[in-house]
Amino acid sequence: MSDPLFDRLTLIGIGLIGSSIALAARQHGLAKEIVVSTRSEATLRRAEELNLGDSYYLDAAQAVEGADLVILCVPVGANEGVARWIAPALKQGAILTDVGSTKGSVVRQVQPHVPAGVHFIPGHPIAGTEHSGPDAGFASLFENRWCILTPAADIDPAATEKLSAFWRACGSNVDTMDADHHDLVLAIVSHLPHIIAYNIVGTAADLETVTSSEVIKYSASGFRDFTRLAASDPTMWRDICLSNKDAILEMLARFSEDLSALQRAIRWGDGDGLFDLFTRTRGIRRSIIEAGQETDAPDFGRHQSKS
Amino acid sequence: MSDPLFDRLTLIGIGLIGSSIALAARQHGLAKEIVVSTRSEATLRRAEELNLGDSYYLDAAQAVEGADLVILCVPVGANEGVARWIAPALKQGAILTDVGSTKGSVVRQVQPHVPAGVHFIPGHPIAGTEHSGPDAGFASLFENRWCILTPAADIDPAATEKLSAFWRACGSNVDTMDADHHDLVLAIVSHLPHIIAYNIVGTAADLETVTSSEVIKYSASGFRDFTRLAASDPTMWRDICLSNKDAILEMLARFSEDLSALQRAIRWGDGDGLFDLFTRTRGIRRSIIEAGQETDAPDFGRHQSKS
Ligand SMILES: NC(=O)c1ccc[n+]([C@@H]2O[C@H](COP(=O)([O-])OP(=O)(O)OC[C@H]3O[C@@H](n4cnc5c(N)ncnc54)[C@H](OP(=O)(O)O)[C@@H]3O)[C@@H](O)[C@H]2O)c1
Ligand SMILES: NC(=O)c1ccc[n+]([C@@H]2O[C@H](COP(=O)([O-])OP(=O)(O)OC[C@H]3O[C@@H](n4cnc5c(N)ncnc54)[C@H](OP(=O)(O)O)[C@@H]3O)[C@@H](O)[C@H]2O)c1
Repeated sequence: MSDPLFDRLTLIGIGLIGSSIALAARQHGLAKEIVVSTRSEATLRRAEELNLGDSYYLDAAQAVEGADLVILCVPVGANEGVARWIAPALKQGAILTDVGSTKGSVVRQVQPHVPAGVHFIPGHPIAGTEHSGPDAGFASLFENRWCILTPAADIDPAATEKLSAFWRACGSNVDTMDADHHDLVLAIVSHLPHIIAYNIVGTAADLETVTSSEVIKYSASGFRDFTRLAASDPTMWRDICLSNKDAILEMLARFSEDLSALQRAIRWGDGDGLFDLFTRTRGIRRSIIEAGQETDAPDFGRHQSKS
Repeated sequence: MSDPLFDRLTLIGIGLIGSSIALAARQHGLAKEIVVSTRSEATLRRAEELNLGDSYYLDAAQAVEGADLVILCVPVGANEGVARWIAPALKQGAILTDVGSTKGSVVRQVQPHVPAGVHFIPGHPIAGTEHSGPDAGFASLFENRWCILTPAADIDPAATEKLSAFWRACGSNVDTMDADHHDLVLAIVSHLPHIIAYNIVGTAADLETVTSSEVIKYSASGFRDFTRLAASDPTMWRDICLSNKDAILEMLARFSEDLSALQRAIRWGDGDGLFDLFTRTRGIRRSIIEAGQETDAPDFGRHQSKS
């Protein structure tokens, strides 16, 4: 194993993403020392039991002292408070990044607090599961996934390259783009799917004509696929909806427009129109599988993992 | 192994569902003889190569001669033509059933052709994958899933019981209900999810501001979950939309109403409302897992089956 990229890595927030980074950094020897900080004593204790770091702090400012890489792994809406708290304690030359699912709002909330001489490079690993907390993490979460960085124009390219090297060492491919474009892309690939999933699960739960027990029993016919996204963390998703409002509303409008057309095709029995749409959408899954972003196994491989 | 339930089982249509029934019937010794019939020579030959039956016919009427169980495994819209074709050849006392995803339309299309003395019991195994054709089948597809039968009031209970025993022997639980209720239940648990999935994948493909290659690269953040349903067979889904129009439009209206409320909550930054909805939907996945209808593994177990 080569020399660690960083001397001291501090993780603020140690849920699914924070703990996965800790495990990946440890496994690949990316930091000499891993410092863990989180808001609650319970989570901090659990992180220690899981041996996720080398030292543990409730005080985020203390935790970042001397760190050359600080990663904020808290819900998007919590970044501002954390940034304000740790700002005075950040080391000159340190890289400060985050993992938040939206980027424009994080930039607006964190940037003003970043001291001169600290490289603030917003980031977002496109990897996750529907589970939360320090027990949910695993080192391979980022393998073969993409990580998007959105450095401002004036950021030192060497700092961006060093952070990219960190993510690549965790197994990810790295892309850079501007924060606004990130938010538009994520609105369609992640935020809209989650919102639609939450919505459909809500609709099903509210029906009077079909019972919940029927929905549960027969869910293998399609519905259950949506329940995974709809089981994601409510705080995280509330924050995302509040933080990326404009792009999400834009995608929702497009979705609703298309749905109206589809509804009309069903109402008027336009079999050819339906067949065309249903054919057009098949190719994209094949491309996703070929890009290594999805399993080839039927039914997500559920029949192998045996439910 | 006890005596086979049936002497001669004929499958009309040998795609995913037909071939899975053939394999399950063979594995559990449910019929002395399995007769396979399908429309095209290519599929018939493939079924023979896969050794799915004991004899093979392009002529469906010939195939049902002497059969005491006939299962129609063709797209919903094809049932009427097949029923008209085979009706004169059906054996007295035979059980005729199907596996179609809608039931009201199948009853309307098939019932008029059923000769007196034949027990017509519509059926629907709530099990499937996004793959099609005779190569897609596997014997365990129905294990631990539900099969819904919708016998009319005047059907001999002994016939319904015998067909139920067949499905139970394939590993399924059996429910009976009337055809209209089936169509309402399936509209929410299966048809709406598929339609929404097709729609969102279509919306993403049409965007000008986000490229398809971006959608594909970052799809692990949620979008890919929808692509599985949206990769389902277009003919099957066109037929379902045409056959269960009223129930589907009713569910679509409910869905759209709820989505408007959610959209409003996002627009007005109603964090509490969003948090409530996102919390309410979590429980249902837990219930589905507890009911044995879903894997407990994070991310559908994709990280185990290694993409
Ligand atoms: N989950 C995903 O699939 C995914 C994927 C990519 C990116 N992300 C992003 O990653 C970040 C973390 O997500 P996660 O899934 O790891 O969350 P998580 O498992 O729920 O963990 C959240 C962590 O943040 C802390 N925290 C929560 N609220 C806080 C607050 N108001 N102030 C300070 N700390 C707070 C928690 O501390 P305590 O437990 O001590 O309260 C915990 O350590 C989010 O920004 C999310 O957008 C998530
Ligand atoms: N797929 C699922 O997840 C699922 C789940 C539950 C129920 N179902 C129901 O099961 C039935 C079959 O679905 P599947 O997935 O097994 O389909 P599939 O794999 O596409 O196979 C369809 C079979 O029907 C034949 N067929 C197609 N069009 C026909 C026509 N116009 N006339 C006569 N035969 C025709 C095909 O014959 P050739 O190949 O010879 O052309 C093939 O043997 C459908 O009614 C569907 O609603 C499906």
